[in-house]
Amino acid sequence: MKAAYLGPKATFTDMAVQSAFPYIETRPYMTIPDCMRAVENKEVHIAVVPLENALEGSVNLTIDYLFHEVNLPIVAEIIVPIQQHLMVHRDHALNWQQVEKILSHSHAIAQCHKYLHREFPHATLEQTTSTAAAAKFVSEHPEMKIAAIANKAAAQKYQLDIVEKNIHDYSFNHTRFIVLSNLSTDVQIALDAQTEKTTMMLTLPKNRSGALHQVLSAFAWRNIDLSKIESRPLKTGLGDYFFIIDINQKMDEVLLPNAITEIETLGCTVKVLGSYCSYALPPSNGFKKG
Amino acid sequence: MKAAYLGPKATFTDMAVQSAFPYIETRPYMTIPDCMRAVENKEVHIAVVPLENALEGSVNLTIDYLFHEVNLPIVAEIIVPIQQHLMVHRDHALNWQQVEKILSHSHAIAQCHKYLHREFPHATLEQTTSTAAAAKFVSEHPEMKIAAIANKAAAQKYQLDIVEKNIHDYSFNHTRFIVLSNLSTDVQIALDAQTEKTTMMLTLPKNRSGALHQVLSAFAWRNIDLSKIESRPLKTGLGDYFFIIDINQKMDEVLLPNAITEIETLGCTVKVLGSYCSYALPPSNGFKKG
Repeated sequence: MKAAYLGPKATFTDMAVQSAFPYIETRPYMTIPDCMRAVENKEVHIAVVPLENALEGSVNLTIDYLFHEVNLPIVAEIIVPIQQHLMVHRDHALNWQQVEKILSHSHAIAQCHKYLHREFPHATLEQTTSTAAAAKFVSEHPEMKIAAIANKAAAQKYQLDIVEKNIHDYSFNHTRFIVLSNLSTDVQIALDAQTEKTTMMLTLPKNRSGALHQVLSAFAWRNIDLSKIESRPLKTGLGDYFFIIDINQKMDEVLLPNAITEIETLGCTVKVLGSYCSYALPPSNGFKKG
Repeated sequence: MKAAYLGPKATFTDMAVQSAFPYIETRPYMTIPDCMRAVENKEVHIAVVPLENALEGSVNLTIDYLFHEVNLPIVAEIIVPIQQHLMVHRDHALNWQQVEKILSHSHAIAQCHKYLHREFPHATLEQTTSTAAAAKFVSEHPEMKIAAIANKAAAQKYQLDIVEKNIHDYSFNHTRFIVLSNLSTDVQIALDAQTEKTTMMLTLPKNRSGALHQVLSAFAWRNIDLSKIESRPLKTGLGDYFFIIDINQKMDEVLLPNAITEIETLGCTVKVLGSYCSYALPPSNGFKKG
């Protein structure tokens, strides 16, 4: 089996793939659409892409591409704790406090804002296309007084020394990754399933005020619990939206199908993206001993 | 009166400010938070920042900052048609078809994707921090075979020749800008008001399934029409959200206040961001004659 993931190597997406599918061949792609197209074109069997971060919110490109461009089921969700570390080239392991520039993805820089403000008020902050790209740059420039903010996998891959662990400001930060598949069989995941979910996208009938209230009523009186509802532009004009809804249960044989049928009868279009298990990676504690 | 806006000069935000407030002093700021802070600190009286684009969706930084960081009322909305043009240095006005690189903001490049794919399949595309920054770069490098995608104001400011007009793929694309104010008096706008709106942010009681359905019920049975509902992370953990709601009417004396009081009694927190008029800029037709 082959898996596409949002690269380069040693990103958080790579960590999600390695943990969930430790024994399969993985291939990095440079964009989220490229990952999805690779599954559609059967270059790979599955793709792992980010869907939502606890601080930044949804990854709009993933949601929009699933709605507008591809027809791929979500078969699993992997929740990864986002742990950011400060790392330098080994040549600077002892004088790392003198770094003049710190590189990382804009989200990682934002996630460590308080730490950077406190510890490196005078360092220049430079954005890179990924946390792994920052680590790679640092590994290739031992002559520069620079550090990268990235994850443990990046430190290992680029042989950097982690000099400060867990420098992110909020310990609750997690990212949801989804697994998209073109297989007709179930995908085996090397983690314990925690909860079950169903995700659907829906479009309301035009110009009918209160249609969203009707949709929520169809779920509410059946005690079907929604964990998320979010709107995204239909790309047909300002004020036209579709909705993405997460439901806290697997597809059943009566209540959810009936709710969906009724919602469709009211003039809505419903696309069920998947009914799947959610898996969580435990926080890494590999540092505590060494 | 002084207005802050998301700069640099000749961006779409600048166009919104110039059209709505043609006679006041304007000052560009480089980030959305900087614009808002300038109003809070009374460096300026009002700020104009983007809130939502018909293709890209909401500007998360604007929504998040209004919820988490500042306490500023929305006093008006300005809707601007997004018209993108291809422009070159005057030295290249006759051989512009030979440009090797095209620069613009990533959103503008995305908005002209089909045009670029058709007309310039071999040109390199390079991202800049704004459409105006692309125009400035082109104006400063007559020796390079490059073009910028930007608006009419940028072409005028940087004395570039517009060689292809309206190259954006979708003609319905608009951006909503909001006006934030620290004035106790009304802000005068040099455009015709089109509709009235009320925008509020709300947080649901924790762990009460169906609370959003209750909120929508309070609006629905009163025939209060919502034009938008969107969720954003509360930044307290995956799955915790606040909602931003647009209502198609001004604050009245009975129905909306009662709905809000009842929603608050149900355990929700409601923050009314503003009750204001919406203004629309007509599409520019200044090109048709010349």
